[in-house]
Amino acid sequence: MQKFKISTKGFTDIIDITLDVEKVVEESKVKNGICLVSSPGSTCGITTIEYEPGLIEDLKRVLDKIAPMTKDYEHCKKWGDCNGYAHVRSALINPFLVVSLENGRLALGTWQQIVFLDFDNRPRNRDIMVKIINATT
Amino acid sequence: MQKFKISTKGFTDIIDITLDVEKVVEESKVKNGICLVSSPGSTCGITTIEYEPGLIEDLKRVLDKIAPMTKDYEHCKKWGDCNGYAHVRSALINPFLVVSLENGRLALGTWQQIVFLDFDNRPRNRDIMVKIINATT
Amino acid sequence: MQKFKISTKGFTDIIDITLDVEKVVEESKVKNGICLVSSPGSTCGITTIEYEPGLIEDLKRVLDKIAPMTKDYEHCKKWGDCNGYAHVRSALINPFLVVSLENGRLALGTWQQIVFLDFDNRPRNRDIMVKIINATT
Repeated sequence: MQKFKISTKGFTDIIDITLDVEKVVEESKVKNGICLVSSPGSTCGITTIEYEPGLIEDLKRVLDKIAPMTKDYEHCKKWGDCNGYAHVRSALINPFLVVSLENGRLALGTWQQIVFLDFDNRPRNRDIMVKIINATT
Repeated sequence: MQKFKISTKGFTDIIDITLDVEKVVEESKVKNGICLVSSPGSTCGITTIEYEPGLIEDLKRVLDKIAPMTKDYEHCKKWGDCNGYAHVRSALINPFLVVSLENGRLALGTWQQIVFLDFDNRPRNRDIMVKIINATT
Repeated sequence: MQKFKISTKGFTDIIDITLDVEKVVEESKVKNGICLVSSPGSTCGITTIEYEPGLIEDLKRVLDKIAPMTKDYEHCKKWGDCNGYAHVRSALINPFLVVSLENGRLALGTWQQIVFLDFDNRPRNRDIMVKIINATT
């Protein structure tokens, strides 16, 4: 099973997906390799952060500063589609992540979780894809 | 064929390269895997965004805010090379992207295109490299 | 050998690790493939930039603007752990990089070096992992 689904609230909802990814890695039985976690979409992101409420708030605040959640985007003016901030955040954060696999496990730090960020301006159902590949050496 | 060339106008010229990458994917006949799209260079980036003029403008505006196109960079003061903003943008955006392959196709969202961004302060010819790898599971 | 260690001064210490990565690539004898460079941790980053003192200063200044090194983070208020800026920068920059291998070498531009960024607010010892994979086509 290389896929799973999540439901989000949108508006930069940040969800910890580490355990779901870990499950796919374990089932693959690959010991030494890499793992691509990605989601098809232009208004979402995948990254790593320590998943605690304070930092989640901090990350949202910095993203609000970089690309504020206003209607002052050409995407909104031209198309009436007022999630321009969401597209720009997605282009900056990217909806993919590659993690090293060591001894059959995700090589993450103790305080490093894999998170999905839904920037869109409405709740969404999202597909997360996990691809696992053996290292050559 | 794992490479193609593009010509850019520089100054954060943003070019849709999705079809070029898709062609390489199709020729590979790999059904289930990953695809690395990258470009050697320190003043460019590769990311995904909905390729429509409004959002292209929006992304440029946010990048102008993060790393303005001024001469106020040490790179310019020390070397007279006044594309410091371009190097900084490249370090933030990165000139690589990894996409999942599903059923022999790039697993992108409907509104998600692969774009090359040339931040340099002059027109450039650029090499884009595409590496394709079978998934193990 | 797929790992090496570095010592950093923290506080956005930026270290050129290109030669260390190149050594692992050479030893692998892989000619056509990809290379994942990553580090487990939630307060560090890996990216590419021209490694000259001016640009290193410029990059630090832009990061200081995006996520200032202050105590004004919820992470600090809630936990007394005042490296909130470091976690946020790591979520934006990401502690991983994928590079194309061409003819057994890292396909980097002339002025493009691989750098490790330690955002933490103290000196650290860090593990860098390098995974190398043959391309399918």
